[in-house]
Amino acid sequence: MGRRRKHARDDPSPAYLQRRERLLAAAAEVFKDKGLEAASVNDIAERLGTDRATVYYYYGGKHEIYLALVRHDVEKIVAVAQDIAASDEPSAVRLQRLVQALLDAYEHSYPFLHLYIQEDMRRIPGDGTKAGAELQELGRRYEAALGKITRQGVESGEFRADLDSRMVTFAVLGAVNWTHRWFIPGGRLSGAEVGRAFADIFLRGLQT
Amino acid sequence: MGRRRKHARDDPSPAYLQRRERLLAAAAEVFKDKGLEAASVNDIAERLGTDRATVYYYYGGKHEIYLALVRHDVEKIVAVAQDIAASDEPSAVRLQRLVQALLDAYEHSYPFLHLYIQEDMRRIPGDGTKAGAELQELGRRYEAALGKITRQGVESGEFRADLDSRMVTFAVLGAVNWTHRWFIPGGRLSGAEVGRAFADIFLRGLQT
Repeated sequence: MGRRRKHARDDPSPAYLQRRERLLAAAAEVFKDKGLEAASVNDIAERLGTDRATVYYYYGGKHEIYLALVRHDVEKIVAVAQDIAASDEPSAVRLQRLVQALLDAYEHSYPFLHLYIQEDMRRIPGDGTKAGAELQELGRRYEAALGKITRQGVESGEFRADLDSRMVTFAVLGAVNWTHRWFIPGGRLSGAEVGRAFADIFLRGLQT
Repeated sequence: MGRRRKHARDDPSPAYLQRRERLLAAAAEVFKDKGLEAASVNDIAERLGTDRATVYYYYGGKHEIYLALVRHDVEKIVAVAQDIAASDEPSAVRLQRLVQALLDAYEHSYPFLHLYIQEDMRRIPGDGTKAGAELQELGRRYEAALGKITRQGVESGEFRADLDSRMVTFAVLGAVNWTHRWFIPGGRLSGAEVGRAFADIFLRGLQT
């Protein structure tokens, strides 16, 4: 890490933190527009009305900025998903809570989870960045939480046994994650409405 | 277009066509591994065990190669979807046929439709390539065919009226398209099995 960057981070002034927030907001817009791969530090600097050197004063590169943007919200929703999956409620209740919690999180941390899904979908093998590996691991934990619920639903007789539970997991995950393509907070439908409807469709489809 | 390339295309020898097939197969592997954006003509040449100049003898660049790979299969499934949507069968039957046809196509033209979804998901605004615009338009037509079926299902009273039909369209589309992340032909489940199960889940979820 650059020495000046490290120094500013270890002892941040209010002005430093404020400017870093502005940088993150500009970067979020750039990533949403162009995608992580096509976006450059230069694009972020331009959006912010500054130069590359200023951006590098705050962050070591675009992957570090991206990780700073999405990690917090992704970690939070993964923790929520794991809590819900570990509860002793019926699978139907847990599935409903999980789907609603995710849509709710998508809405409230827009566009950070959308950014995550947009990029995670690319999951280019051998990307090799530390940020990529961390975020993929978070995605796996989310998937595992959902998988646990659908599997236990079949085991307990709540969900139909004629459907492969892994396939069901991916059906739910696909419907939910695809919202990054069409769901915009503040539009006609709220996250809670979409979450309720999705949970309802899948529960009718799955329950015995 | 380069003059040599044009000449070879207008009057292709069997050897030319065979070599071009090999090039396309190598390019499909590269695109699947690295994604369209990260892939380079150089990667394709390396996979083929040749040099960039040879690749450029066949195609003007990676976007042209990508388009050659996916267009045929995407056009085919869009035509199938439009036919199904236009038929006078009940919406439930059409939805089932559409989902099954798509999964079936995913399986039989693997990995070309997967490549398409993988890239289409990125849908980077302002990408500006002609290939991108053509493929996005095909995606819209597919979406419209599915949307027609869900909307008419609500209008005819077959499907629940308490669910927003646009949201339902995206739920189905998301589940189906997400298969590009986990479904591999020749695995435990066939495309027909996944298609049948998905159609069944959604019909139970949607029918009145």
